[in-house]
Amino acid sequence: MPAYKAPLRDLHFVLNELIQVQDVIGKLPGYEEATEDIFASYLEAAAQFCENEVAPLNRSGDEAGCQFDPSTHSVTTPEGFRDAYRQYCELGFTALDCDPAYGGLGMPRTLAFPVMEMLCSANVAWSMYPGLSHGAYAAIHAHGTTEQKDTYLPHLVDGSWTGTMCLTEPHCGTDLGLLKSRAEPNGDGSYAITGTKIFISAGEHDLADNIIHLVLARLPDAPKDVKGISLFIVPKFLADGSRNAMHCGSLEHKMGIKANATAVLNFDGAKGFLIGEANRGLACMFTMMNAARLGCGMQGLGLGEASYQGALAYARERLQMRALNAPHSPDKPADPIIVHPDVRRMLLTQKAYTEAGRALTALLALQLDIEEKHPDPETRQDAADLVALLTPVAKAFMTDNGYEATNLGMQVFGGHGFIREWGMEQLVRDCRISQIYEGTNGIQAIDLLGRKVLLDQGQRLRKFTRLIHLFCKEHAENSQLKPFTEPLAALLKDVGDVTMHIGMAAMRDRDEAGAAASDYLRLIGHLTYAWLWARMAQTAAARLASDEDGFYQAKIETARFYITKLFPEVHTLIARIKAGAGPLMTLKEEHFF
Amino acid sequence: MPAYKAPLRDLHFVLNELIQVQDVIGKLPGYEEATEDIFASYLEAAAQFCENEVAPLNRSGDEAGCQFDPSTHSVTTPEGFRDAYRQYCELGFTALDCDPAYGGLGMPRTLAFPVMEMLCSANVAWSMYPGLSHGAYAAIHAHGTTEQKDTYLPHLVDGSWTGTMCLTEPHCGTDLGLLKSRAEPNGDGSYAITGTKIFISAGEHDLADNIIHLVLARLPDAPKDVKGISLFIVPKFLADGSRNAMHCGSLEHKMGIKANATAVLNFDGAKGFLIGEANRGLACMFTMMNAARLGCGMQGLGLGEASYQGALAYARERLQMRALNAPHSPDKPADPIIVHPDVRRMLLTQKAYTEAGRALTALLALQLDIEEKHPDPETRQDAADLVALLTPVAKAFMTDNGYEATNLGMQVFGGHGFIREWGMEQLVRDCRISQIYEGTNGIQAIDLLGRKVLLDQGQRLRKFTRLIHLFCKEHAENSQLKPFTEPLAALLKDVGDVTMHIGMAAMRDRDEAGAAASDYLRLIGHLTYAWLWARMAQTAAARLASDEDGFYQAKIETARFYITKLFPEVHTLIARIKAGAGPLMTLKEEHFF
Repeated sequence: MPAYKAPLRDLHFVLNELIQVQDVIGKLPGYEEATEDIFASYLEAAAQFCENEVAPLNRSGDEAGCQFDPSTHSVTTPEGFRDAYRQYCELGFTALDCDPAYGGLGMPRTLAFPVMEMLCSANVAWSMYPGLSHGAYAAIHAHGTTEQKDTYLPHLVDGSWTGTMCLTEPHCGTDLGLLKSRAEPNGDGSYAITGTKIFISAGEHDLADNIIHLVLARLPDAPKDVKGISLFIVPKFLADGSRNAMHCGSLEHKMGIKANATAVLNFDGAKGFLIGEANRGLACMFTMMNAARLGCGMQGLGLGEASYQGALAYARERLQMRALNAPHSPDKPADPIIVHPDVRRMLLTQKAYTEAGRALTALLALQLDIEEKHPDPETRQDAADLVALLTPVAKAFMTDNGYEATNLGMQVFGGHGFIREWGMEQLVRDCRISQIYEGTNGIQAIDLLGRKVLLDQGQRLRKFTRLIHLFCKEHAENSQLKPFTEPLAALLKDVGDVTMHIGMAAMRDRDEAGAAASDYLRLIGHLTYAWLWARMAQTAAARLASDEDGFYQAKIETARFYITKLFPEVHTLIARIKAGAGPLMTLKEEHFF
Repeated sequence: MPAYKAPLRDLHFVLNELIQVQDVIGKLPGYEEATEDIFASYLEAAAQFCENEVAPLNRSGDEAGCQFDPSTHSVTTPEGFRDAYRQYCELGFTALDCDPAYGGLGMPRTLAFPVMEMLCSANVAWSMYPGLSHGAYAAIHAHGTTEQKDTYLPHLVDGSWTGTMCLTEPHCGTDLGLLKSRAEPNGDGSYAITGTKIFISAGEHDLADNIIHLVLARLPDAPKDVKGISLFIVPKFLADGSRNAMHCGSLEHKMGIKANATAVLNFDGAKGFLIGEANRGLACMFTMMNAARLGCGMQGLGLGEASYQGALAYARERLQMRALNAPHSPDKPADPIIVHPDVRRMLLTQKAYTEAGRALTALLALQLDIEEKHPDPETRQDAADLVALLTPVAKAFMTDNGYEATNLGMQVFGGHGFIREWGMEQLVRDCRISQIYEGTNGIQAIDLLGRKVLLDQGQRLRKFTRLIHLFCKEHAENSQLKPFTEPLAALLKDVGDVTMHIGMAAMRDRDEAGAAASDYLRLIGHLTYAWLWARMAQTAAARLASDEDGFYQAKIETARFYITKLFPEVHTLIARIKAGAGPLMTLKEEHFF
């Protein structure tokens, strides 16, 4: 496994040339200081930190895992994790896109997201400690009282405390309506929280002085379903320094992300503080959840990038067989395997998915910044709609593609890919969970099709497709771009037809939506990536004259690979969607043999 | 993870109703004793052994792994492995399809393959010890001298000795032409073998008294490429009981199949005996390799089945959310997740791929039996051609589908799928290697398209497509079968066109074949499965009147799921193939950023 190198060149392309972040950011009140130079210096600092501090802990962290001591209920993270976390805090990264009122640096998400991508590439298990913490920061910042903000945010911002989100219970993950944890009023404004939470990432560790758990629980007499869930702040240590009545019961043994502590947390009348309105906890939690879903997408992206780097280096060095037409390196015993078309197929699949994912991430980060800071409410709403529509796509499409990319990277290594020391199989194992947590990818698909598209009669979708339509129209006469705009425009029409088709069918039978959802999400994923690749091809084509190192040419050729080799998945997806729910639903439950 | 149950009902369907094995087997000289009753009793015994003896060792074997003691170069297999192996030998399974002249039971492969499938489902790591051994048996049986056969085969047949195949070296896996291990004549007819072999499955262990290594090495002055490789028998213990000059240097740390010892073997002038002709070792090794490739396919099949069983049981028990149209279990807090279309999509994908894989396995086993025993040379040649054509398909298509199936099974479990104790993620890790070893799936694709299809100008392919054409013609008027025969006939035509297209393009540029190969293999895979599903639907339809438990109805509906939801992948594959090699090859090596 070669050393990780942060993809600064491509980030520069995406941020400054593709989405031209400065044109937008510079005009958003509060982001005046986020200049191109500031971006560059933070990205460079993050790159160095990721390359030199956390990437070297990735393999060893996987081997060592987190250690749980049942006698003290404490967790020891792998060697080096504490030092790296301390440095990360000192460098200010926990504060990067946090509110200056609480010690934050006030940088936009368009800067924070690329930093997160790099962390995911370098060491995804490590990245989850500050990642979850940032989610807790965001929830308290959005929904906490002034006192709660003053109490918790400065510590979460400087990294001396971390945070978690506690949703899942043994009998409920997706279906939070079944949640049993309860909160009894203590009479002093606080609550006694009792229940068991499982799968709590970064739930217990030795990196910080305190851990602030955000816990979903039911108040007495709360409605039985999701409308009866409230959110509570439950610190590991209370304000007076005393230990709260909650502890880590055990750590899970997992396929991957072994260096992140996935804890079972037992709350035994622990003191908790209501955050947000009673019975509206799920809405508060979704502040964290939506960010976490984008975070998942970035895990797929970052791990795909790491795997691509490993596979590319190996494909250049490993000598095996001769090129089919003529020897590439006749002076060597065999040719490097990068000459073989099938190896290139694997590398280019990794590259095309990764670079499009990076572009989508930047696009979404920019919309989040606009949603938060833009003075015009309509512009804010448009941005919010685009984020709402594309969040499930980013989560599911990027993690599914990331899993494919990490598997391909491993495949490039042949038998060596299966050996732990090479590091390629760890990327596969670490990536696998991203398709599951924060709402399985099947749930993302239902969220997209059901809540984001059908529920508003396609209003958000039309806002999005209009952007694509305008792009196609603008470049209709550009013959260089035709290989991209023609299939894109054709898919645009197909998506309209298919959406209408599903909407009509679902009115008769809701299972029609459930049956179409996963294919539909990939269809919208390809619509998004085809649009982004067309834009990247156009951006690169405009800069070909100054193409010193072949970067822009490579971008155009990767776009061509994407549109001719990956995009055709849409034919299958459309055929599957049109086949409807029947083939899934007619088999009786007892006839599954 | 629920207990494994051998799929005896489906095996009965495939063997006795679909391929009607008795009609063929009964007429092959030497298989007179392989009656339906004999089949049933062996399958029942194998089922019991797999369910009760090796399945319970699967999780514990994964956790414990094999232990290497560097001081003695010895390997200890996980607890219970020795006992299970002793029982397996006592039950006669090591001898099942071996030559009675050496103590074998003389049963056909149509019986042995289902047994192998069950072993793979129950404990794939364990299954590889007898599996590799059987490969060594087959190579010595096919290429050994009378003395060699008399010396080694009785012990391999009764299981007191096991065998391995030693091909890979650190610098060469796919490209055996680079092989460096050397064999110097000792002057007494034996050779001194020196070199390092890696990735040797079952390379060292404590299950048997001796291990017979089949080792590829070069004689002095042998040609430098694959034409200079010879095969040697190198026993761990020599005839006089002395330890040969070879030892296990270490075990690999792997992603999966942890309970199988993947050894580095160092040969330091070890005594070896030439088997087969000098410099023709690769041809001898391919006797093992082709069987091993089918064995790989069965790993994909068996692991897919195990994962399906686990996911199905979980989907019936796990309560989460309500069915979209109306509650399924209103008396329970939520509905079992099998009501959700997307969960059914995952289960049916597992089921459809697994059952088609089982049918393909039976078909190939029968052809192998015909190839070996049929009195008519032309019939034998037809069988051999079908086996040659479909071996790479069985290896790659079944393992790729098996990997998808195990991943889907894990996904059905949600977060619990990622937890080791549930056993679902182990199936994923154990399956992953099947796409890599015995020739990566990319190599299988090149073997299929290059050697098996283009090299003989499509002769073998036409023999195969003719079978399918005849089936479609025979059932052209059967309106019940139209949903299967119509897309099948359409693909038949497309495959002809696409093969011609690639053949023409490859004459100008060989990379065109390399670029098309992986997609082409999946295309032929779907041609094969669509044919098998059409046949299964027809077989089931003919028995619907006596469908007591819904088995035949389920078969028809699974066929319908396959043809409407999985088969449409062909649209994407054809589009990708037609896009040609350009998008893969134009990007310069130095422009992969």
